[in-house]
Amino acid sequence: MTTSAVSIEKETVISERPHTFLRQTDGEYNGSIRSRFQSMILEMQESVCGALEALDGAGKFKEDAWTRPGGGGGISRVLQDGAVFEKAGVNISVVYGVMPPEAYRAAKASAADQKPGPVPFFAAGISSVLHPKNPFAPTLHFNYRYFETDAPKDTPGAPRQWWFGGGTDLTPAYIFEEDVKHFHSIQKRACDKFDPSFYPRFKKWCDDYFFIKHRGERRGLGGIFFDDLNDYDQEMLLSFATECADSVVPAYIPILEKRKDTPFNESHKAWQQLRRGRYVEFNLVYDRGTTFGLKTGGRIESILMSFPLTARWEYDHKPEEGTEEWKLLDACINPKEWI
Amino acid sequence: MTTSAVSIEKETVISERPHTFLRQTDGEYNGSIRSRFQSMILEMQESVCGALEALDGAGKFKEDAWTRPGGGGGISRVLQDGAVFEKAGVNISVVYGVMPPEAYRAAKASAADQKPGPVPFFAAGISSVLHPKNPFAPTLHFNYRYFETDAPKDTPGAPRQWWFGGGTDLTPAYIFEEDVKHFHSIQKRACDKFDPSFYPRFKKWCDDYFFIKHRGERRGLGGIFFDDLNDYDQEMLLSFATECADSVVPAYIPILEKRKDTPFNESHKAWQQLRRGRYVEFNLVYDRGTTFGLKTGGRIESILMSFPLTARWEYDHKPEEGTEEWKLLDACINPKEWI
Repeated sequence: MTTSAVSIEKETVISERPHTFLRQTDGEYNGSIRSRFQSMILEMQESVCGALEALDGAGKFKEDAWTRPGGGGGISRVLQDGAVFEKAGVNISVVYGVMPPEAYRAAKASAADQKPGPVPFFAAGISSVLHPKNPFAPTLHFNYRYFETDAPKDTPGAPRQWWFGGGTDLTPAYIFEEDVKHFHSIQKRACDKFDPSFYPRFKKWCDDYFFIKHRGERRGLGGIFFDDLNDYDQEMLLSFATECADSVVPAYIPILEKRKDTPFNESHKAWQQLRRGRYVEFNLVYDRGTTFGLKTGGRIESILMSFPLTARWEYDHKPEEGTEEWKLLDACINPKEWI
Repeated sequence: MTTSAVSIEKETVISERPHTFLRQTDGEYNGSIRSRFQSMILEMQESVCGALEALDGAGKFKEDAWTRPGGGGGISRVLQDGAVFEKAGVNISVVYGVMPPEAYRAAKASAADQKPGPVPFFAAGISSVLHPKNPFAPTLHFNYRYFETDAPKDTPGAPRQWWFGGGTDLTPAYIFEEDVKHFHSIQKRACDKFDPSFYPRFKKWCDDYFFIKHRGERRGLGGIFFDDLNDYDQEMLLSFATECADSVVPAYIPILEKRKDTPFNESHKAWQQLRRGRYVEFNLVYDRGTTFGLKTGGRIESILMSFPLTARWEYDHKPEEGTEEWKLLDACINPKEWI
């Protein structure tokens, strides 16, 4: 996608969160997938933030809401410098935008002598990154999104498109095998309710997607990831995305409860900080959401909310073979089957 | 340039620095620009590292040298956790590579029905980033490079190309006007020896180049920057690049001597760390050298040597109007004429 040519309008900060970000024409259809997906992500933001605040005990989420003149908007929630979390962000956004016809996946199907017009699109999603303070407590990322394009104008017969994308993945600085197994089991359970092929397929997709090519290593220990999913029933995929989002709390909170108070020293902290550097490298160089957001003029603070509070780069750092740090790095270089 | 299609060979670490990285066929011509440029950057690495070690007093540079099977190689020198410097890197490299014909700037001139072959290129450069510990002592970056392409095979008449690029720029977390004036004056003096148009032109080029588009702000307070420079006498440009490189120590060391021991508190340090986050954002998203290096499979540790030891991202951080932090940010948003 020629992302630099995709345009969305500048946002306006608003003082109160609205009931909906949908355009009135969309809002009328309460049963539409757009509307039901928006309801799902709004509820999810509530329930995840509630669970995180309860776990943290001290930090509270700060909320920023914004809208765009032509419809759409978002709500960012950030908890910074809590008792457990260094930085935890849970964003939802609803975007109405326009992409150039070259970027529209079905445009190729149209006759070569036809010039299709720009393609309006709709995108809604929830996106979250949770960075705990304790180096033995893993970072979590999840993101679930729904995308629709209108049919391009002046191109009779070109179809309207829709697809789902998302995933949940775990990024520890140290491996506790029972934690990684627990996390992957919950992902598999959510997948298996819908299709036995989902977990193996989306587990591999996750390993492939979160690859820091210039390092030859993955960002973390994976989970599930899927994109452009539209070759199943739309209702089924909405239920699947909802199930995945519902699995975030049971997959993550029990791990944090076990690890949040583990004693650690400066060298554990330095290693965690080095791994956070890798997180920044992945997000700025490879992550589609981040690079798309930066190039389209999305809300910067919401896009870069995924960044850790602090990160570290040491020249030519190599953990000694056999150490706990080396084990983590090895699992990032050679992805494993955890269950 | 389709950087992903540019290829260079994997490097081999060597235990001793060689006398030259030039291929034998190049090495024979001691008077060639390739050879004289290599001598210049080797000497510059010596003299800059010497001056930095003398200033630091405690830290010593660690050297790593490598070669590539088909010729070329490099020497990385890094001083980490010194008395004055958090991280200081001074790299030189000599690269023999091949770029696809589409990337060759003169290829367009050839007849459309001719298929030019891949274009061999030669690139040599010195590149350095110096991050002091004290938040009142600015970060310095400089880079001087020389580039040559062979004429593409099978394309009679297509010319061999050469060009110079480089620059020196200052990135403080706090503005001391006398420091910035001193720094820019030295850059202007170097430029004025060659062409009165150079300083104004390269000063603006620097402001334009180090622009973090998604933030609407520059990385720092600029200096000079130029690229693709070949419309002057080649000897003159070699002298100019040498003069610029010679100006690094007199432009920077006096500033560090003044600021390295300035007392500071935690809030000064946090602001410096936030600005270092911007440094990372610029380098990973926009810097040509970094993005080129990551995509072509260059030596990762040498490429990312430019990164600060530590960096910080706070959600929605905005300095209060009128504060010293705000003044720096304002000068990054609205570049000033310093002299």
